[in-house]
Amino acid sequence: MDKNNERECNEDLIRERRKCNFNIEELTNIVDGGKARTARRREIQRLLINDPEFLDEIPQDYMSHEDRYSNELRKSAHLMQKLADQESGHDIHQDIGALTGILKDGNPLMVHLSMFIPAILGQANSEQQEKWLGRSLRNEIIGTYAQTELGHGTFVRGLETRATYDPTVEEFVLHTPTITATKWWPGGLGKTCNYCVVMAQLYTQGRCYGPHPFIVQLRDEETHRSLPGITLGEIGPRLGLNSNDNGFLKFENHRIPRTNMLMKHSQVLKDGTYVKPLHNKLSYGTMMLVRVGIVGACSRSLQYAVTIATRYSAVRHQSEIVPGQPEPQILDYQTQQYKVIPQIASVFALIFSARSLSKIQSSVTAKLKDGNTDLLPELHSLSSGLKALSSSDASWGVEVCRLACGGHGYLASSNLPRTYTGTTCAITYEGENTVLLLQVARYLIKSYRSIGKETGASSVSYLADQTSLASSSSSFSNKALVQAFKLSALSLVAEAEARLQKLCDMGQEFYHAWNYCSVLLLKCAEAHTRYYICEKYEQTVDSLKASEGVKNVLQSLCRLYLIYHITLTHGDFLKCGALTPRNIAVLEGEMCDLLAVLRPQAVSIVDAFDIPDELLGSTLGCWDGNVYQRLYDEALKSPLNKTDVPDAYYKYLLPLMKSSL
Amino acid sequence: MDKNNERECNEDLIRERRKCNFNIEELTNIVDGGKARTARRREIQRLLINDPEFLDEIPQDYMSHEDRYSNELRKSAHLMQKLADQESGHDIHQDIGALTGILKDGNPLMVHLSMFIPAILGQANSEQQEKWLGRSLRNEIIGTYAQTELGHGTFVRGLETRATYDPTVEEFVLHTPTITATKWWPGGLGKTCNYCVVMAQLYTQGRCYGPHPFIVQLRDEETHRSLPGITLGEIGPRLGLNSNDNGFLKFENHRIPRTNMLMKHSQVLKDGTYVKPLHNKLSYGTMMLVRVGIVGACSRSLQYAVTIATRYSAVRHQSEIVPGQPEPQILDYQTQQYKVIPQIASVFALIFSARSLSKIQSSVTAKLKDGNTDLLPELHSLSSGLKALSSSDASWGVEVCRLACGGHGYLASSNLPRTYTGTTCAITYEGENTVLLLQVARYLIKSYRSIGKETGASSVSYLADQTSLASSSSSFSNKALVQAFKLSALSLVAEAEARLQKLCDMGQEFYHAWNYCSVLLLKCAEAHTRYYICEKYEQTVDSLKASEGVKNVLQSLCRLYLIYHITLTHGDFLKCGALTPRNIAVLEGEMCDLLAVLRPQAVSIVDAFDIPDELLGSTLGCWDGNVYQRLYDEALKSPLNKTDVPDAYYKYLLPLMKSSL
Repeated sequence: MDKNNERECNEDLIRERRKCNFNIEELTNIVDGGKARTARRREIQRLLINDPEFLDEIPQDYMSHEDRYSNELRKSAHLMQKLADQESGHDIHQDIGALTGILKDGNPLMVHLSMFIPAILGQANSEQQEKWLGRSLRNEIIGTYAQTELGHGTFVRGLETRATYDPTVEEFVLHTPTITATKWWPGGLGKTCNYCVVMAQLYTQGRCYGPHPFIVQLRDEETHRSLPGITLGEIGPRLGLNSNDNGFLKFENHRIPRTNMLMKHSQVLKDGTYVKPLHNKLSYGTMMLVRVGIVGACSRSLQYAVTIATRYSAVRHQSEIVPGQPEPQILDYQTQQYKVIPQIASVFALIFSARSLSKIQSSVTAKLKDGNTDLLPELHSLSSGLKALSSSDASWGVEVCRLACGGHGYLASSNLPRTYTGTTCAITYEGENTVLLLQVARYLIKSYRSIGKETGASSVSYLADQTSLASSSSSFSNKALVQAFKLSALSLVAEAEARLQKLCDMGQEFYHAWNYCSVLLLKCAEAHTRYYICEKYEQTVDSLKASEGVKNVLQSLCRLYLIYHITLTHGDFLKCGALTPRNIAVLEGEMCDLLAVLRPQAVSIVDAFDIPDELLGSTLGCWDGNVYQRLYDEALKSPLNKTDVPDAYYKYLLPLMKSSL
Repeated sequence: MDKNNERECNEDLIRERRKCNFNIEELTNIVDGGKARTARRREIQRLLINDPEFLDEIPQDYMSHEDRYSNELRKSAHLMQKLADQESGHDIHQDIGALTGILKDGNPLMVHLSMFIPAILGQANSEQQEKWLGRSLRNEIIGTYAQTELGHGTFVRGLETRATYDPTVEEFVLHTPTITATKWWPGGLGKTCNYCVVMAQLYTQGRCYGPHPFIVQLRDEETHRSLPGITLGEIGPRLGLNSNDNGFLKFENHRIPRTNMLMKHSQVLKDGTYVKPLHNKLSYGTMMLVRVGIVGACSRSLQYAVTIATRYSAVRHQSEIVPGQPEPQILDYQTQQYKVIPQIASVFALIFSARSLSKIQSSVTAKLKDGNTDLLPELHSLSSGLKALSSSDASWGVEVCRLACGGHGYLASSNLPRTYTGTTCAITYEGENTVLLLQVARYLIKSYRSIGKETGASSVSYLADQTSLASSSSSFSNKALVQAFKLSALSLVAEAEARLQKLCDMGQEFYHAWNYCSVLLLKCAEAHTRYYICEKYEQTVDSLKASEGVKNVLQSLCRLYLIYHITLTHGDFLKCGALTPRNIAVLEGEMCDLLAVLRPQAVSIVDAFDIPDELLGSTLGCWDGNVYQRLYDEALKSPLNKTDVPDAYYKYLLPLMKSSL
């Protein structure tokens, strides 16, 4: 697709693009995080897009479950080979986002890259790294990460799989004592991997020391057969991501050498003595890194969905605004703008939050190396809150985009269904959102109760600031709106704390009182995290060095985001007096104006996300806007369309139709 | 499954069921709409459940697209045959809900039952019925209903397909002038149907009379080959419902006899004279009936999802409320109760609304026969609003239930993914929700502006009632809460009207002002319809003749529903003064109490929905609660688990793993 060739492009899109009043490439660089990263991403994408090995013979949705797995394994093996062949191949761990869209519905080798190798890097000592890291990076062994069990998810302490140390032969005995202890879910575990990091309860010298990581060979390296004492399989079809053989794993007193326990932090000595880690939470680093990655991935999913919905909304004409006039572009309807444009604003909120979190994560990790764990609770709370809100915002936003495309958004060829099914799972994995938000709430209540004591944790310092906002003004700067978010969060935390205290005063135990307030506590955690996101958004845009055009667009998007989220939860702002009913009405009016201001720029903004058609994979979202022809051409690929009359007719329909004659 | 045999049942569920304090069978009868209907539903279900023809060799999700279609056609043909064999077979149109769950992912013959036959009944004159009705009921011909086009959905006037009358041979010429005019979406159209009702722009004597229905033969009755001048095919895979060959259809100057225009209302005479219908909106009846059906179907989907989530929440243990204690049932967490129990309450809201709408529909239809169309706008508005809210409430509710089941809710074997993908499409089809709600808003503004004039439309009479609610009380009866909904709706309508008027006063044309207020107008329509649902809920429960136990449960559910929806939109109640911040806090507290009161009854209430395991089709929701064993057994059915080492390993993985050696 030659983007400079207007002749092949839908006329509505040509007109939309001519309205652009900012430098698209500059915005692309901001999205990528700098010119160099834009160039690097494009280089990787170019390398992959032009490779015919990544094409499917027929779209995957037509294939059987087995064929889908086989087809995706073919492509993912090719991808790994290709990356390994590149001089800079190993850097790919930093550019994993550039691969989005190359594989369509899961990747059996992804957990090898995203968790197995990081676990070795983060948890194995130097001899262990020597033994396994190089082989993993060269793909000689392929691994996954097995934590979740059939009966146990986010609550890691509840895991049942056991690793019991036997000092007589210096081995651990891995065992699955019940059906609920069956490892369940790891990507690639069913059929692909031959190694695995397993989290199991460590027993030695008659005592349980809690969950620890062990590296376990699962399959013979020559035959790929599963080893004796190990039962492996695939867990069956899912809402989405059906090609990455999520698996189950059971151990029947399976023995591994003592040195297969990953011993960078804790150790078990030959005689069975347990040596605890220098610092209890040193192993948190990997988990935090994964969460930063999730926030970024959620932003990318939303970029895909909103690119599709925005372009389609410019191409699609429907109904009438003025009776008797031609059908307008549906993007001209305020209700459509209200669906699509706040999602564009949300993309940047997630990008800027992810970047802020990543910075904090790096500085905390640096301090951790010196044994300083002071800021871990702060990082834990922020990463939990952002993981939760970004996954639920993105899932909901993708679904809004899908529904904004009407019936065609339900078609697989729009790529919106797969974008949704591949995003919503982030609500559950790597810490279920409700559980994470309640951990944020715990931190908030604790911080609120220790007001006055210096914690150094900046994200909650506002809890000490009880000064109210003067709400008589009828216009608000972005900074003033952020202050309103602050007051709303603060007031919810104060309300929850008071309700908790009251229940305790009435004689309830704290734990029961906590549970009895937990719906309110969830709201606190959401309000707190939303405030953080809004503050970073405002600060990032405010301090951005950019041309006037780009700055204007981002300022409008930021303001839309602030007002949009105020109107969604305006009761909380009214209740605490941060805003008056009159303020809300004014802001609602301004939101309509912002939608009108941003509408002519919408197509150009999503163009700046710079997603190649080959990766976007959408009939509705393609760059040239030839939506209807593409929908029709895709339909013709259905195997059912190869013949006029299907075999099933003779078998089942003909007998029915002739039965009454 | 013998429901009296506790020995085979999960112990948590046994304990839950022993807590039941109401008569389950009595509640079942209320859900079904009376004892006789419960008996009839059970009779139909028994007939189908025990028939081995409805079993799948392997779960559908493992099959290729072609095999799924073939498999579902096999079962649906068998179902049609079976129903036809029953003496009372034709009554099935009234009991279509009883079939839910028999077919798993679409039904190529469903539109034949749900729209083709009703279209003949509602739009064909008596000679035409004689010709086609009997043959349709006997399945000698199989039809579908083709309205939507590739470029045209809810806006029926925009359809492009043409039917041009040629008086010289007394035929209509059907033609598809552009690619966007391609008929697109009808279920069963691709490969199954040989007849079709086609909506096309009627041209005669040089004039266009708008969209009219035509019956068109598509395929040869002997060979099933598509007829000359007709291009047919399947539109490709979708988010869900992948087995009902949604199709496309193009005409190339295809001729049909004049008498194939369905002429119950409008006619074209032999010479081409157009005879308009006695009343313009007589053909609305079928559409209204379909919408009543959608509200009912949405309630059923939600019953399925909430049955699964509630039972699983009683069986699943996770994490801790009191440190050191055993892991509690997740249903003991307030946050889990807050996800699941309001969805139980929502089921009854939808059931009672559907019943109320159905009554109004019958009385309006009766009046229509006498040519009285006075109440059509009222019915149109109510059915639009209820279709919109029931489909979005149910979709959202099903998704909340799915996410409440954590990772396992993402597994196909939970049946939650399919319940969601089969429900969310109702947001779009039969009138896209945003479009419908704006039609409701139009009716509201019109009614508001004609206050004082008698319209006889009872659902909007409240718009004339400007008396404010005394909000000083700290406790509210259910009736008082319903009044608060009324005031909230009224105040939103008044606000929207004022904003509209202000824009017009400033010189904007009404149509542009309307568009500029449409986000607010959507809120009006939602608030109005929510008020209607709440009022019917309160009235139905209040006037119900039932035993004390059942009445108590329904009163708690109704109250929970009212408070839940107030807290979701509390800003609207605060803004208009219907409730104070103090009221809201009290209601939030009461909501927590209601969740605690209903929690011990939750399993028994979903038991009262009386969904047989065979139809529920869920590893997580089965009656006996043996969740983990069922999950494991289902996984073993994966074809990938037939061999330890998959073929794909030798083809793709082995070369990768050995490439660096």
